[in-house]
Amino acid sequence: MVSIDPFAPAHAIADQVRRGHVTASAVTRLFLDRIAAANGKLNAFTDVLAARALETARAIDERKARGEALGPLAGVPFAVKNLFDVEGLPTRAGSLINRARAPATRDAVLIERLAAADAVLIGALNMGEYAYDFTGENVHDGACRNPHAPDHMAGGSSSGCGAATGGGLAPISLGSDTNGSIRVPSSLCGTFGLKPTYGRLPRSRSFPFCDSLDHLGPFARSARDLALAYDLMQGHDPQDHACAERPVEPTLPGLGQGIDGLRIGVLGGHFSTDGMPVAAKAVALVAAALGAGTTVDLPGAEAGRAAAFLITNAEGATLHLDRLRTRANDFDPETRDRFLAGAMLPAPWLVKAQAVRRWYAAQAARLFKDFDLLIAPSTPMQAPRIGQKTMELRGRTVPVRPMFGLFTQPISAIGLPVCAVPVPGADPGGLPIGVQVIAAPWREDLALRAAAFLEARGVAGAPIPVL
Amino acid sequence: MVSIDPFAPAHAIADQVRRGHVTASAVTRLFLDRIAAANGKLNAFTDVLAARALETARAIDERKARGEALGPLAGVPFAVKNLFDVEGLPTRAGSLINRARAPATRDAVLIERLAAADAVLIGALNMGEYAYDFTGENVHDGACRNPHAPDHMAGGSSSGCGAATGGGLAPISLGSDTNGSIRVPSSLCGTFGLKPTYGRLPRSRSFPFCDSLDHLGPFARSARDLALAYDLMQGHDPQDHACAERPVEPTLPGLGQGIDGLRIGVLGGHFSTDGMPVAAKAVALVAAALGAGTTVDLPGAEAGRAAAFLITNAEGATLHLDRLRTRANDFDPETRDRFLAGAMLPAPWLVKAQAVRRWYAAQAARLFKDFDLLIAPSTPMQAPRIGQKTMELRGRTVPVRPMFGLFTQPISAIGLPVCAVPVPGADPGGLPIGVQVIAAPWREDLALRAAAFLEARGVAGAPIPVL
Repeated sequence: MVSIDPFAPAHAIADQVRRGHVTASAVTRLFLDRIAAANGKLNAFTDVLAARALETARAIDERKARGEALGPLAGVPFAVKNLFDVEGLPTRAGSLINRARAPATRDAVLIERLAAADAVLIGALNMGEYAYDFTGENVHDGACRNPHAPDHMAGGSSSGCGAATGGGLAPISLGSDTNGSIRVPSSLCGTFGLKPTYGRLPRSRSFPFCDSLDHLGPFARSARDLALAYDLMQGHDPQDHACAERPVEPTLPGLGQGIDGLRIGVLGGHFSTDGMPVAAKAVALVAAALGAGTTVDLPGAEAGRAAAFLITNAEGATLHLDRLRTRANDFDPETRDRFLAGAMLPAPWLVKAQAVRRWYAAQAARLFKDFDLLIAPSTPMQAPRIGQKTMELRGRTVPVRPMFGLFTQPISAIGLPVCAVPVPGADPGGLPIGVQVIAAPWREDLALRAAAFLEARGVAGAPIPVL
Repeated sequence: MVSIDPFAPAHAIADQVRRGHVTASAVTRLFLDRIAAANGKLNAFTDVLAARALETARAIDERKARGEALGPLAGVPFAVKNLFDVEGLPTRAGSLINRARAPATRDAVLIERLAAADAVLIGALNMGEYAYDFTGENVHDGACRNPHAPDHMAGGSSSGCGAATGGGLAPISLGSDTNGSIRVPSSLCGTFGLKPTYGRLPRSRSFPFCDSLDHLGPFARSARDLALAYDLMQGHDPQDHACAERPVEPTLPGLGQGIDGLRIGVLGGHFSTDGMPVAAKAVALVAAALGAGTTVDLPGAEAGRAAAFLITNAEGATLHLDRLRTRANDFDPETRDRFLAGAMLPAPWLVKAQAVRRWYAAQAARLFKDFDLLIAPSTPMQAPRIGQKTMELRGRTVPVRPMFGLFTQPISAIGLPVCAVPVPGADPGGLPIGVQVIAAPWREDLALRAAAFLEARGVAGAPIPVL
């Protein structure tokens, strides 16, 4: 038996398990031990599913012993944001109120798909309440902490994903992204993260936030792991009305094709990094490696972001209306106040926001006639300190909570696929920061190809925490 | 020269013009004379475009004289609801406020398409203010009157279409239908009317009401004329964001194929005609002729209608927000009060309505797996008297204005194509009433085929007014 590096790529771990060099049980125990050692500090996991994970791993090992072929994620532990249904757990979605729900009777469809590839679910992860958050400071479960500096935020709302995968507690994790909730913690925790095209991955049996903007997607420590997990999760599911009836379009086969012939631009205007030196450095490194010399404007990005604020607010409030009426005091006050505002928002604001979004999507579609990929920062800066309420941005003091979505929100507003890549060279030895590689709808393959290219050249990579 | 019967089918008139038996100018003069004689009584036209029409007709006759081939609607006069842009006219949309707009500089796209087939635009038609109406009682222009009994309503909001085409003042007219505004006046005035699938005919250069529900479509005095006009107007136009990029799917070639093999059901439940003897008779005659023996339920129709009310209210209010702020007193009070309510509607009501509509559309899609066509009444009863505010419906006194959409609103709510057919046998010698022949999305052809079948058997037909 070889020993397993917890920061090794998931596909390499699976390879060792498939070859019989290590058992799924040993891998699972390694990660359970790491969680036991580090979770008190990081607060990434709200539920550790040790018994279930060991049982799953044992079954995999038995199948291996019988000579059966194992799946592409054989023995690879993964964890999910606690808004995914996990059989036997109430789906809390970061809230206090949801803990009274009946335990889920069936795993979310994306968990089932990774499990079918012999991945091992090891736990459910901390998150911002009802996913309405960029900080990861959950008032009920405590703040999730950055694996690279535990007195700093992990980012939100998929805080536990960033902390667990960034911290080497789960090679792969699954999160959700409505306005940036995969890309912000990816940036702050130094992981790769994929927010696929809206409608690509089915959300069946996950707790929603804003139906028009909710996306699910994976976190990983390499572009190849991200593509692998994503490929395994693709495919229509009729239980999600927004899930497109598209064939599975595998990205792994073309992952190493490089970027020759791709027209890549750098977003300016709203996405300018003036006065944000680390974000600017990250973008510059990526742009140089990709040969992206053109700075282009995405017309309507600011209006699109405003529209996303309103749509999120109105749809989120609608979802929680009964809870707001009956259990307002059991919400995180910062979440509740925004939901209450949404409940009172006049309908014409929403109608206008929906029209703006439609117009803005048409502007973006036009831009993608000239470009295959667009580069933008993931976050304006690195992780703030836990408890930090404001930050300096472009010479103004602004609130941390909404402003960390400055660059992510205009992209998810129109459902574009994005690969968030960590760029360690932006601040060597400092806290992580990431860049968004944005593609036209349904072209996740191109964003992943560019991420793999950047990783192969050492520009992108998940830093190993010094925990 | 033969004399032209103003109640002759449009295609027969065009045929005479193409053969040189009558000139386009003579046809145009005939209809201009009829308008001059009858419009004082009916109040169908708000603008008679005599000079333009005679000029167009003369040009057609000159082309004929030069031996050029003429289009399929050669010399056929048509008129449009005054929410269509007509070059040189302010697009008033039934309002006082809009009369201050600059004159339109280009005809609506559907006008251009009929004109390209050598039809002759002769005027713009009265309508309910901003299309928010089922009565045709315009407070600014006066009530439009029923050609079969001028002390009765024409129905709305395409009141002038019903009165003009029902009264023999325009063989073809174009209206709009958001919740029933083509089908209600068709029923009350005894015309055929087509509300195509949402997204089929481009709305470019027409004044909107509720973007998510607005449809444009033709009125005619025969199924064949309806199909002919509809075919000529099909085709994508990029200026209407909702217009589907579908090929033209002509319906005329298959119009006479009959109904063999079509599975036709009669809608019950919400669409029950209990206590509405004339509507019941109309449905029974159509059902018998089509061999439709099964009564089926369309689950969610009532909820879908409620959703349509809210969506209309919210989107309509959004459209008129500035006018409500600055010129509230210049609205028809009955229109203004509903728009004001919409301006204050909480956004969650709209979010829920949009979700209900989505759910209800899925129910309807399921029903269309078992049926090709569904039959329902167009209106609960025949035309009320001008000024009538309430009516008896299912044992209750209800307001006329909203309740005339009882049966039409749940169908347009999810964009299904409908051919409204007049059924004179429902009350021989009495006022007209019609029936909706409803098809699955994009199957206008089937609804039109059934309408032609009913007409050929004498069950459907546009009655000639005794004016």
